[in-house]
Amino acid sequence: NTTSKKILNIAVIAGDGIGKEVTPEAQAALVKAAGDEVEFKFTDYDLGAERYLRDGTLLTDEDLASIGEKDAILLGAVGDPRVKSGILERGLLIKLRFAFDQAINLRPSKLYPGVKSPLADPGEIDFAVVREGTEGLYSGMGGYIRRGTDQAVATETSMNTAFGVERAVRYAFDLARKRGGKKHVTMVNKTNVLVYAGGLWLDIMDKVAAEYPDVTWDYLHADACTIFLVTNPSRFDVIVTDNLFGDILTDEAGAVVGGIGYSASANINVTNEHPSMFEPIHGSAPDIAGKGIANPSAAILSAAMLLRHFGYDAAAGRIESAVEADAKENSSRKRSTHEVGTDILARL
Amino acid sequence: NTTSKKILNIAVIAGDGIGKEVTPEAQAALVKAAGDEVEFKFTDYDLGAERYLRDGTLLTDEDLASIGEKDAILLGAVGDPRVKSGILERGLLIKLRFAFDQAINLRPSKLYPGVKSPLADPGEIDFAVVREGTEGLYSGMGGYIRRGTDQAVATETSMNTAFGVERAVRYAFDLARKRGGKKHVTMVNKTNVLVYAGGLWLDIMDKVAAEYPDVTWDYLHADACTIFLVTNPSRFDVIVTDNLFGDILTDEAGAVVGGIGYSASANINVTNEHPSMFEPIHGSAPDIAGKGIANPSAAILSAAMLLRHFGYDAAAGRIESAVEADAKENSSRKRSTHEVGTDILARL
Ligand SMILES: CC(C)[C@H](C(=O)O)[C@@H](O)C(=O)O
Ligand SMILES: CC(C)[C@H](C(=O)O)[C@@H](O)C(=O)O
Repeated sequence: NTTSKKILNIAVIAGDGIGKEVTPEAQAALVKAAGDEVEFKFTDYDLGAERYLRDGTLLTDEDLASIGEKDAILLGAVGDPRVKSGILERGLLIKLRFAFDQAINLRPSKLYPGVKSPLADPGEIDFAVVREGTEGLYSGMGGYIRRGTDQAVATETSMNTAFGVERAVRYAFDLARKRGGKKHVTMVNKTNVLVYAGGLWLDIMDKVAAEYPDVTWDYLHADACTIFLVTNPSRFDVIVTDNLFGDILTDEAGAVVGGIGYSASANINVTNEHPSMFEPIHGSAPDIAGKGIANPSAAILSAAMLLRHFGYDAAAGRIESAVEADAKENSSRKRSTHEVGTDILARL
Repeated sequence: NTTSKKILNIAVIAGDGIGKEVTPEAQAALVKAAGDEVEFKFTDYDLGAERYLRDGTLLTDEDLASIGEKDAILLGAVGDPRVKSGILERGLLIKLRFAFDQAINLRPSKLYPGVKSPLADPGEIDFAVVREGTEGLYSGMGGYIRRGTDQAVATETSMNTAFGVERAVRYAFDLARKRGGKKHVTMVNKTNVLVYAGGLWLDIMDKVAAEYPDVTWDYLHADACTIFLVTNPSRFDVIVTDNLFGDILTDEAGAVVGGIGYSASANINVTNEHPSMFEPIHGSAPDIAGKGIANPSAAILSAAMLLRHFGYDAAAGRIESAVEADAKENSSRKRSTHEVGTDILARL
């Protein structure tokens, strides 16, 4: 009975490099996993390096308005060696996150059985990083004067607001509850140096934690956290941190769980006023782009996060189980992007 | 013939926690390794948590003036759980680095044979991080308004000057030459987001690299660098980066080479107008402080860096070989701080 099917309009931004290769596999998984419950209407957006090199545009007001009407965004990757660093990232990826007020950058790290960690004794790894997504050093507030002279000065300002920090912290405590595991939140910052920003973060932690007596929390400096990620990653349940620390720690975490081939993410607009965006945390990987060998698992797991976002937990779980089973059986085999996608699809 | 002995006046700031336990071992190693060439005059400074808790002072102008007359500083560790995060770090450690214009925070990472890395397949690891030490997000420029309200805002500003960045970059290229290994410099930043600061760093790299045609260089984003540190640390020779990225990456690097028990550092004043400061990169480790079980190897290796700084390469080499031999034979044995110090001393 197709008339009762819910329709989800998805903006697809495959983007650059391997983004173009992994995104179709994620779309196929979405359709197959939720086929009975949801009808997906995909709209492709030609955004990224190709378009920028062709006509110099990145993300116009028209693009934003059109994408803004969709229910969610599926993004591949952004970045191209032919374009100066920062242009695509700031003008497209970060612009989307900020324009759609995607406050929570949620990044689970899980070591799937069968996937090889670079650690000798990784133990069980299953935690999630809640990375604040709309402020910090990503705010773009800074400048560069006297370029090219010996007196040049460049600044970057990290912006931290009670509003932004509290959204992230509250989300982290809710998530720790929902996960129902250790029920533990670790705040990461560098309060011994960044006394203003770190102070605000700690103040908000104190305030919010009081409302969650069933959830414990501790604090780690970012430098110490990078140590624990390789010596004792099992200690973590939910990590909450700012935009830049989150960026750095989730890449390290991705490496620890066997490479960012299995690291998905959701950029969540918590009020649902704007679309949320789902993307693998790996980049466009220019070194392997065009070869059809990128692992689409992270993109497919991002599709699962999309389903979970809309409440289709069973369908999301099916994708996660399929990826997990595929990893267990095949992660050491060399397969093409499409082969991996097909193998995972066959399990759905 | 003692009359020809050079005298070095050393300010000793044992500081907090295990700093007090490891520093005497470093002093003993200094004296024994360079006994024939140098006479050390140590002056102890009572700085750190105890003094702060006793009389509320951190580092007075008199302290600074007195320490500033010494040839070098040997520092243990700073930080105490009884003191609010940031007070001792900013008021003492960072104040020393800034007051004495210690532009270069040099941090070698070497996996000694016999020391166990958490990586399954670490390979050969031997690189050095040149961390800029006097600007970036450590400049303390920021603020916190409307504390305790929903409208609170806190900022931190990263300062980057051509002057400061060029000192660090030039030091890195010189070091790559001097090490005579891969002769390769990797600049780490986050140029795709921090377009102003990253832009300045890249501009300076371009300029300085042109003067070193025999040294190659590449660029890595900080997030990608955390991945390579666990998947392929052998790729690095010299890393040059800003104050905060350097802080984070050297802790991860320390973990990768078997724990920060073997990670030394030098805070170098490049003009020798002010004393340079030598310290293990581990902190005061409140969890094990007072038990006499901290590994003094990093402090002892910092003493070797002090000797090298003053041109006593042979004596420095003797310490390094002694630590290396001790690690190879004993690193898996449980020994007290003083036992390790004594074992190393016996090899000098
Ligand atoms: C491409 C880059 C701008 C981006 C970021 O820094 O957020 C990426 O590293 C990520 O983590 O999604
Ligand atoms: C204690 C702290 C202020 C210090 C720093 O951040 O520089 C430490 O982590 C280090 O790396 O020396």
